[in-house]
Amino acid sequence: MRIEGRHYRTIWQAADGSGDVEIIDQTRLPFEFVIARLRAVDDMAEAIRNMRVRGAPLIGAAAAWGMALAARADPSDAGLADARARLLATRPTAVNLRWALEDVGAVLRQLPPERRAEAAARRAAEICDEDVAICSAMGDHGSTLIARAHDTKSGGGPVNVLTHCNAGWLSAVDWGSALGTVYKAHDAGIPLHVWVDETRPRNQGASLTAWELGRHGVAHTVIVDNAGGHLMQRGLVDLCIVGTDRTTRAGDVCNKIGTYLKALAAKDCGVPFWVGLPGPTIDWTISDGLVDIPIEERNATEVTRIAGRTDDGRTIEVQVTPDGTPARNDAFDVTPARLITGLITERGLCEASEAGLLGLYPERR
Amino acid sequence: MRIEGRHYRTIWQAADGSGDVEIIDQTRLPFEFVIARLRAVDDMAEAIRNMRVRGAPLIGAAAAWGMALAARADPSDAGLADARARLLATRPTAVNLRWALEDVGAVLRQLPPERRAEAAARRAAEICDEDVAICSAMGDHGSTLIARAHDTKSGGGPVNVLTHCNAGWLSAVDWGSALGTVYKAHDAGIPLHVWVDETRPRNQGASLTAWELGRHGVAHTVIVDNAGGHLMQRGLVDLCIVGTDRTTRAGDVCNKIGTYLKALAAKDCGVPFWVGLPGPTIDWTISDGLVDIPIEERNATEVTRIAGRTDDGRTIEVQVTPDGTPARNDAFDVTPARLITGLITERGLCEASEAGLLGLYPERR
Repeated sequence: MRIEGRHYRTIWQAADGSGDVEIIDQTRLPFEFVIARLRAVDDMAEAIRNMRVRGAPLIGAAAAWGMALAARADPSDAGLADARARLLATRPTAVNLRWALEDVGAVLRQLPPERRAEAAARRAAEICDEDVAICSAMGDHGSTLIARAHDTKSGGGPVNVLTHCNAGWLSAVDWGSALGTVYKAHDAGIPLHVWVDETRPRNQGASLTAWELGRHGVAHTVIVDNAGGHLMQRGLVDLCIVGTDRTTRAGDVCNKIGTYLKALAAKDCGVPFWVGLPGPTIDWTISDGLVDIPIEERNATEVTRIAGRTDDGRTIEVQVTPDGTPARNDAFDVTPARLITGLITERGLCEASEAGLLGLYPERR
Repeated sequence: MRIEGRHYRTIWQAADGSGDVEIIDQTRLPFEFVIARLRAVDDMAEAIRNMRVRGAPLIGAAAAWGMALAARADPSDAGLADARARLLATRPTAVNLRWALEDVGAVLRQLPPERRAEAAARRAAEICDEDVAICSAMGDHGSTLIARAHDTKSGGGPVNVLTHCNAGWLSAVDWGSALGTVYKAHDAGIPLHVWVDETRPRNQGASLTAWELGRHGVAHTVIVDNAGGHLMQRGLVDLCIVGTDRTTRAGDVCNKIGTYLKALAAKDCGVPFWVGLPGPTIDWTISDGLVDIPIEERNATEVTRIAGRTDDGRTIEVQVTPDGTPARNDAFDVTPARLITGLITERGLCEASEAGLLGLYPERR
């Protein structure tokens, strides 16, 4: 990700040799670009819980770095178990969190405590590099869908891609899942335009996706979450591409709340609906997304209060409901595999089904 | 509608004999209850365009009162034709606007100019009374659906109704279309709870519907527009009831943008989806909603800026997108009849089809 001409990832080890970790604080975007420094595992847990870092791949990388911070402070078995529990409790839905904690934990268990801090940081850095490679490969595979849509579009014109939430640079270490395909296609010269779902209640589309696409020079238009079906009915969407926080081995996709509604509209209107799915986001232990995936319920004030910028340049929250109005805030929903045209993985494209996934990941048979 | 113990309609002739018209200014809700006085047809056109009054039935009543204000100022044929054109240009989608203008126009054409002002005011008042009677009858018919849902609900408990936008007191002269059924059922002692879609971009659900339901003492919870499908998947919605801005003779329903997405989810989850439909909202001249209904596109700033109340009690707008972000703002979408369980009219319930509607309105055969 290039910001003002300089390349950034979303998370990295501070360059000063302190062992601290730095992140782009996503709660300050799109109005302020702020780097936050995290010194301890509790800093990382707070950053994940309050969505300073968010997005399934980035949550995994952040959890790995959280273990590195923990190992620096207390590399004992008890200390690491405590850190693992604190990180695991931050957010329940994305499987990458658990995956990364298990991965780093397996590395550290084999080592004496005095060697764990360095090994944890090394493994966290590797997980970040792996995520970049995964997203880059997904982008290459997915961009062929956009290229094909352009080739077959009657009358030519840019390919209209609809996306929900933020599955871009900011949701991963770099590139992103769904938007990685958009960036690769854009960089290859394929004319495209992105419909950006606002994504209430936290407005990740209106703030993060619009900001990212703008920085990269990709044409885009923000719409409210209510609008996607209407645009599909009118032939104004060529394909949908979204991310996922957890996918079952049967291809059910748990993603930001509202994804299910867009998938229904895509099915009804004959619009292809694709999901950008990094391998670590697959939960091979479950099949039925509606039954087996815990759905995070967040604070109701995320619904009743909205953050934005005042005309005099301050970022504040305003209340949008009458005083005392109850609200409910489920963060994710499940899109059944039957509504999904296909999955975009780092190993290629496949059908959203157990057979499709096992064709690409035969080691999981 | 009772506010602080006093009964209000949403629009009425001022009691001081001036001939002015008064409205509840809905752009000031939910934080301020303000009565606005309208003295001329241009005041009314501004009020409709800027949604100080909104909702298909209320737009019709407001247009009729606009003609009364016009006839007071200039009752000539030319003056009334000009007023009609100004009012008709305010909002394109709700057919009630055109219907009310034609109705009042037909009355006035038969009269000499000097008798038109009084006749227009009388007819506008009648249209308001008729709307109250229509909504009351719709409420009686529709409340039987809620009663039946309660009778058949396994395990008992309140009936969970999901609604989109505001089709309540504030969208009509009194009672409302969809919410009239809720108020009648609530008043009859049927336990119920309403899921209130926030309804971006103008938040009519979060502001107006939540305010109305709260005033009337009906249990409710505000949710983001993304959430309804998830709640239906989980069995947390017993039926959906929405309003409509224009319905074709074949039963296609044009309502606030996002209605189509909820209807798709209801169909997918086996949740009944009903539409509260006052007779004057039927456009008997058209059949195919997707082809024949003009969809209003409103200003993009309604998407990029959100109004709310600051912690120190001021109502302001904040910007939620990066500077210069393009946005698109279609105000309505079309829900095909095939997705609709049935229509609630002042004459009873019917299937969403030409046969269903003609069974209740045989004079339209």
